[in-house]
Amino acid sequence: MQAVLFDVFGTVVDWRTGVAAAVRRFAGEHGLELDAGAFADAWRSRYVPAMRRVSTGERPFAPLDVLHRENLDGVLADLGLGPGDFGPAALDDLNRAWHFLPPWPDSAAGITALKRNYIVGPLSNGNTSLLLDMAKAGGLPWDVILGSDVSMAYKPAMEAYLRPAAMLGLEPGEIMLAAAHEADLAAAREAGLAAAFISRPLERGPGIPGAGVATGSWDLSVSSITELADLM
Amino acid sequence: MQAVLFDVFGTVVDWRTGVAAAVRRFAGEHGLELDAGAFADAWRSRYVPAMRRVSTGERPFAPLDVLHRENLDGVLADLGLGPGDFGPAALDDLNRAWHFLPPWPDSAAGITALKRNYIVGPLSNGNTSLLLDMAKAGGLPWDVILGSDVSMAYKPAMEAYLRPAAMLGLEPGEIMLAAAHEADLAAAREAGLAAAFISRPLERGPGIPGAGVATGSWDLSVSSITELADLM
Repeated sequence: MQAVLFDVFGTVVDWRTGVAAAVRRFAGEHGLELDAGAFADAWRSRYVPAMRRVSTGERPFAPLDVLHRENLDGVLADLGLGPGDFGPAALDDLNRAWHFLPPWPDSAAGITALKRNYIVGPLSNGNTSLLLDMAKAGGLPWDVILGSDVSMAYKPAMEAYLRPAAMLGLEPGEIMLAAAHEADLAAAREAGLAAAFISRPLERGPGIPGAGVATGSWDLSVSSITELADLM
Repeated sequence: MQAVLFDVFGTVVDWRTGVAAAVRRFAGEHGLELDAGAFADAWRSRYVPAMRRVSTGERPFAPLDVLHRENLDGVLADLGLGPGDFGPAALDDLNRAWHFLPPWPDSAAGITALKRNYIVGPLSNGNTSLLLDMAKAGGLPWDVILGSDVSMAYKPAMEAYLRPAAMLGLEPGEIMLAAAHEADLAAAREAGLAAAFISRPLERGPGIPGAGVATGSWDLSVSSITELADLM
């Protein structure tokens, strides 16, 4: 194994807590009454369908920042709110919440430990500038950041795994994907990568039973990135 | 200014010393008598012409590793040597000398200091895997590595400056290029970037007078990356 690449949203960072906090600030500034956690969930629920329209060829590739911004308009519309109620700068600012999500407590230490013996980087649907902002703000010491705007493909498309491998000069089998999502691991394995499951039971918020338990059989199955570093 | 991006060969690393050392080892292993410094110079002299054939459209984009490997065959042929005298693995191995060039003494410290307030990365004609190997071996703590294989363009083509800017979500004017080569700085300025000259009088070996003195007028002119960090 030469490299350990990571799914990011949910695996390395706590998107729900980070987005809900930004939504709470936004709501306070604009005098809105809303459930920030539910808003975050609604925003996230539009993520996979939006990427699927790219993967099926229904629309050309657009960076995740663009998809998130469109999805935000959709969430607001469902609440009876329109972009005109806020002005574009305020919504662009809220959209950047996805650039500054808080890492899970073990993420920076685990990545730092793995970095001694492996190339470490994200293998995320995030665009490069999003992943870069997140890394600098959260102290994630990636060796390399090749966002989905470099591969021009969204997971679980095979190209999303194969293109970074090629750019790193590695065979797929020299790379391990670490992710909290089994569909992501299954696609990575299909592309020839090794697969490590990282349990993140709090990803979808507290009190949702069953989340975080692997049903598949993976090369490794751990409950933190530090544990992954210890095992490798 | 949001980001400081660096020319690499000559500016951040000492290509001549690194390549000559690898050539010396190679010559020893194969019982060859040759001047390792002159070999390094001959190899480097084929660099710009090879990239120019890409920039003019004479051939499609090929990563720098491929161009270096072709150029190596040319240098050997000039010495009356053929690839068949060594076997391909030995030459591929020698070609990887460009991945492991030694940083100048101030490079890692200067980049570390700049990283506190700016995005730091290479803006090099090297491909991503080359720059990644070099960073890990030399302790260069880049925030992001977008090689020429990401922009699919070689400096001084405008696209080589504008594509990384776009991928970082920055305007060209928010980026400073730091380089020891004035033609590189001139092209960066034409693309809208700020330009810092770093003097590297030893780049072409000791005793070559005149190297390392800027003739143009640049935003900053320094003799090390640590000095650049102090001034910014």
